[in-house]
Amino acid sequence: SSDLDWKIVNTIRVLSAEMVQAANSGHPGAPMGCAPATYVLFKKFLKFNPKNPNFAGRDRFVLSNGHASALIYSLLHLFGYDLTMEDLKAFRQLGSRTPGHPENFVTPGVEVTTGPLGQGISAAVGLAMAESHYGAIYNKHDVQLVDNFTYVMVGDGCLQEGVASEAASLAGHLKLGKLIVLYDDNKIQIDGSTDLAFTEDVRMRFEAYGWQVLSVADGDNDLAGIEAAIRAGQAETTKPTLICVRTTIGYGSAGQGTEKVHGAPLGGAGLTKVKSFFGLDAEKPFHVEEDVRAELAGFIERGAALEADFNKRLEALAAADLALGAEARRRLVGDGAGGSLTPSHTLPAAWLAAIQGVVDGVSDGVTPAIATRKASQMVINALAPVLPELIGGSADLTGSNLNYLDCSHDYQAATPAGRNVRFGVREHAMAAICNGLHAYGGMLPFCATFLNFIGYAQGAYRLSCLSHHQVIYIMTHDSIGLGEDGPTHQPIETLVSLRATPGGLTLRPADVRETAGAYQAAVSFRQGPSVLALSRQNLPQLKGSCHLSVAKGGYLLGEHGSGERVVTLVATGSEVALAEEVAERLAATPGGDLRVRVVSMPCTQLFDQQPLAYRQEVLGGVGAPVVSIEAGSTIGWSRYAHLTVGIDTFGASAPYTEVYQKVGLVPEAIVPRVEAFLKHVQAAGGQAGTLPTLQEF
Amino acid sequence: SSDLDWKIVNTIRVLSAEMVQAANSGHPGAPMGCAPATYVLFKKFLKFNPKNPNFAGRDRFVLSNGHASALIYSLLHLFGYDLTMEDLKAFRQLGSRTPGHPENFVTPGVEVTTGPLGQGISAAVGLAMAESHYGAIYNKHDVQLVDNFTYVMVGDGCLQEGVASEAASLAGHLKLGKLIVLYDDNKIQIDGSTDLAFTEDVRMRFEAYGWQVLSVADGDNDLAGIEAAIRAGQAETTKPTLICVRTTIGYGSAGQGTEKVHGAPLGGAGLTKVKSFFGLDAEKPFHVEEDVRAELAGFIERGAALEADFNKRLEALAAADLALGAEARRRLVGDGAGGSLTPSHTLPAAWLAAIQGVVDGVSDGVTPAIATRKASQMVINALAPVLPELIGGSADLTGSNLNYLDCSHDYQAATPAGRNVRFGVREHAMAAICNGLHAYGGMLPFCATFLNFIGYAQGAYRLSCLSHHQVIYIMTHDSIGLGEDGPTHQPIETLVSLRATPGGLTLRPADVRETAGAYQAAVSFRQGPSVLALSRQNLPQLKGSCHLSVAKGGYLLGEHGSGERVVTLVATGSEVALAEEVAERLAATPGGDLRVRVVSMPCTQLFDQQPLAYRQEVLGGVGAPVVSIEAGSTIGWSRYAHLTVGIDTFGASAPYTEVYQKVGLVPEAIVPRVEAFLKHVQAAGGQAGTLPTLQEF
Ligand SMILES: [Ca+2]
Ligand SMILES: [Ca+2]
Repeated sequence: SSDLDWKIVNTIRVLSAEMVQAANSGHPGAPMGCAPATYVLFKKFLKFNPKNPNFAGRDRFVLSNGHASALIYSLLHLFGYDLTMEDLKAFRQLGSRTPGHPENFVTPGVEVTTGPLGQGISAAVGLAMAESHYGAIYNKHDVQLVDNFTYVMVGDGCLQEGVASEAASLAGHLKLGKLIVLYDDNKIQIDGSTDLAFTEDVRMRFEAYGWQVLSVADGDNDLAGIEAAIRAGQAETTKPTLICVRTTIGYGSAGQGTEKVHGAPLGGAGLTKVKSFFGLDAEKPFHVEEDVRAELAGFIERGAALEADFNKRLEALAAADLALGAEARRRLVGDGAGGSLTPSHTLPAAWLAAIQGVVDGVSDGVTPAIATRKASQMVINALAPVLPELIGGSADLTGSNLNYLDCSHDYQAATPAGRNVRFGVREHAMAAICNGLHAYGGMLPFCATFLNFIGYAQGAYRLSCLSHHQVIYIMTHDSIGLGEDGPTHQPIETLVSLRATPGGLTLRPADVRETAGAYQAAVSFRQGPSVLALSRQNLPQLKGSCHLSVAKGGYLLGEHGSGERVVTLVATGSEVALAEEVAERLAATPGGDLRVRVVSMPCTQLFDQQPLAYRQEVLGGVGAPVVSIEAGSTIGWSRYAHLTVGIDTFGASAPYTEVYQKVGLVPEAIVPRVEAFLKHVQAAGGQAGTLPTLQEF
Repeated sequence: SSDLDWKIVNTIRVLSAEMVQAANSGHPGAPMGCAPATYVLFKKFLKFNPKNPNFAGRDRFVLSNGHASALIYSLLHLFGYDLTMEDLKAFRQLGSRTPGHPENFVTPGVEVTTGPLGQGISAAVGLAMAESHYGAIYNKHDVQLVDNFTYVMVGDGCLQEGVASEAASLAGHLKLGKLIVLYDDNKIQIDGSTDLAFTEDVRMRFEAYGWQVLSVADGDNDLAGIEAAIRAGQAETTKPTLICVRTTIGYGSAGQGTEKVHGAPLGGAGLTKVKSFFGLDAEKPFHVEEDVRAELAGFIERGAALEADFNKRLEALAAADLALGAEARRRLVGDGAGGSLTPSHTLPAAWLAAIQGVVDGVSDGVTPAIATRKASQMVINALAPVLPELIGGSADLTGSNLNYLDCSHDYQAATPAGRNVRFGVREHAMAAICNGLHAYGGMLPFCATFLNFIGYAQGAYRLSCLSHHQVIYIMTHDSIGLGEDGPTHQPIETLVSLRATPGGLTLRPADVRETAGAYQAAVSFRQGPSVLALSRQNLPQLKGSCHLSVAKGGYLLGEHGSGERVVTLVATGSEVALAEEVAERLAATPGGDLRVRVVSMPCTQLFDQQPLAYRQEVLGGVGAPVVSIEAGSTIGWSRYAHLTVGIDTFGASAPYTEVYQKVGLVPEAIVPRVEAFLKHVQAAGGQAGTLPTLQEF
């Protein structure tokens, strides 16, 4: 390594510390420790095109220890990405492209959002899986089209997180030979020495997972050692590689090697000392010397050449196999495919016909009651042949979630062209991996478990939403309707939790048609994840249900009775049929003057986006009484209803019809409550009060 | 092992399969495979008193693979617990004591609720930590008072879960020598062979964590081997032990060794075949032979003797040290302490005075603005000296969560008397371990991280609620108020998610007095967990705030202006001061006739429990306009307010005052919205419509 190399490394260290100092907030220690390893990676290995961060042939780099964000911003700036010195100076400021933790939708060159620990390395497993899958389907006719590495930088925090353990175990199982993880082994975490809480043998653990484990003894000073280790990582093609790089946190600072430099600025004097230690001019803030700039300028040309080479290979593939080449272009290049900013690719038009086919298969009065998880199975198996980007699996509940794509086979180390992933009992990593699959570009990943256990994956689901990852969550057994497994498995708070998380859709269809419509909404929604909440139990096909109306969130299913007093029952999923029954009974009261409207509301978030006039019309008009019925927490329903019927306790272990009975979700219990409510409305002159969703302030 | 031993083992196997058959639901495979190991454990090792399942000196047994519930019910029945044959026949039926998954609050002898995979083994780490802590503080004066083992049965599913990995790593770090885990190593999971997804070297992984790892080659037939392994586990006192017991799922059934016997009844014919394979009478369902009964009858006497021996030791301790003996009795024996059913022990009266002391330290107009996380630090450090049961720590954010108990030291392998646990970056295991600490009895555990990352621990938080574990969650940095760390760290959906989970309290205090009151509510609430949502940023001391009123959930803080038109602003935590500012501005409108009431609502769940009249009074009366202000999702607030001001998008990375500005949580943005709303109310004759919380149907 040359003096200039060291000058660049030290420039990275100092820039990062300066950013934190300017913001008076952030983490200088990790960037200063990780600068050598990441510099070697960017300079010697990482294939990228700074002028087109989404270039499909690029290697992927994930900074899993996202609090070291100043490091990646420094690197991106120096290596020619569209990130200016002004951007660096605006670190952690409102509207800047250099937020506190790296965000894929903000900063060019950031593949996935990190910061919540363990998410980056787990998403990286998804990135590496995507590469192996694409390689299996597109590396044909002697063209090696897809052939990139996935590199990750992690710290102690990530490696303590369960989600990372899950993902690492699966990565070893899948023999992801192109996944190379650099571990910032600095023996320090926020509370102090790792001796406080983390004394396991990390090397042995990763060997147990089936990884190659390498070490670099002096990660602060040994650039050649780092290079050799990464090269050895590349050479091992049947195992992921963990490179334990022994570093010093805050290297070069007064507090180096201690937790003091983890999460606080070094201070003006501290920074001056650091700059003098590294032989940089303390009088010049945010300064990059000319020779450093000159040395790195070549990466722009190099990037363009790499992209040109990829395009040549893509052309060669198309020349050998026109359809395959077109398909590879659609998914990999697309209209801006890839993790950075807003990835998207065009879907084959045929998918809508596949949905329509399922809808057309339903005959009112003929099609029997079917669980919506079963309907989901019908839909994904209609979609799978026409949507090759549909890839995913279950956390070891395939036979219950009914998510298997019959047109394909298992995705395994020996069969990477398969589209059915066996995630194992690893809900959190499953969701994080799907984020990574999506971030690679050209993928429409799905994952599956019981709805209740999306809670285990909350950290990753939140990032699906924040980072605009279109992941389809097939969540079955969506209520007390699962019956005997009992309250440990029966979601109560889950639906409202999901609805309150910005950026995603929560879809709870009521029958086969609505399930088809829910998939239509989910596949159409490119900006984030969709959760499909699906029943274990059979549900009747509803007269008046409409797959196209799912896109409106809620719609009038039908009316019972023809009286003058109007009441609207709004329900979702398995409770729509229950609402119909309640409506029938209410309307049938002898001498009654009721007209009972039933609204199906498969997605409150889509309903909220409808014009006010539509919302008013669907809910029966301003002031008209509305009752909600859903087998879950009533919290949240007051936006849409005056009387909210649901479950605000835990469920019970019993045959599901008995559980419904126990919690009062049966007509015998609901009808009197609605009647008491309507009596109150009558006493108030027929007005139930305006609803929040029918107001706009 | 005698023929009778095998008869008992086979009786357990058959009883379990019969329960599943009778319920036509459940999991026969694991009980049939695990019967030998658990029988040896119960017969040869486990110290218990079937007639007093909470006897303090007992060993703890956790069935982490909770879907094998029929197994523990069979064992409890046969070994003399208060679980009758009728109870077994009512497996998975409404109101039975034999629910689908074991529930500590339902079935005597069940220490912790299991079923959600990975929770049991993680809670068991907490149980073992409690034992080591109690041993350190009570095994004095030559009395070995506390000296129990914690045994766990786990399956492949638990070992794939991240939460279990986190807990196992920490258990190794803590050298929990009395934790012995039996691993049902049957090479099958729900989807099929473990080769599908789980090919890591489990033995090596646990060795990497610092565990002793032992094996039993034939767990179906080798009772002596099982016994020898458990004995070797006991002999290793400085490491937890994992015993890999190679078994056959559904041993003795036609589908043995396959996933087919995992989660479905064997069928009538299948059951007959099993019974004949084991030489039991196929004509006698739910039958236990006399010699089996006779062999196990002695466990009742044995249990009584074990309890008498414990009591003798407790008396000896009290004789040597009256205060220490009394304290041990208070915490360990209590009034029904221990995991099973509703654990509780009496708290020392002095804790209320400690709370009062913090309150008395606040002077209106003198005490400066203080972050509520800092107020929390004051309160727990006031409580800690008088509440020795307060034990816990942070997921590596001690300096940010401010949770360190200054009167104690670290809980570590070498210092188990310490009360500050270093959980590492393991949020999920942290919460699960706290469940275990509480289940041991006599403990008041707490855990800490940023509020946003309670999402990582959702699976365990839910079990705190369901299983009535009084765990205090100290969740700081509770909103966009954390500023620069950005949207990855800023909770939006978290508060409503917590409020929608039945069984817990979510407390968001506004200043020092309310923080003291929040702790008073949390310590008083013995039936479940409390989450304290605490600010990173400084908050002013509010005139009119009252620690005692926190117990009512919401209360009138004060009024601004004296006009005739009344509007109520309801806010929580950091937004109460904002509401005061908004109120001041609204009331100061020239020529205005407004009277603006500010309600502080630290806990909606407690407010919901107040009498209707109180709720009406606090919110200003039926029909009076109410506006809510909270820096989180507005979902849920329509129960309490007509206009809900909050954040329904993700936050941003910037200094926190700028983030507040960006999302419109500043007086300049809120005042016009409230004015527009009030104009609408005036147009409607002054009535804003009744609120759900002010109605009762
Ligand atoms: Ca570290
Ligand atoms: Ca198994």
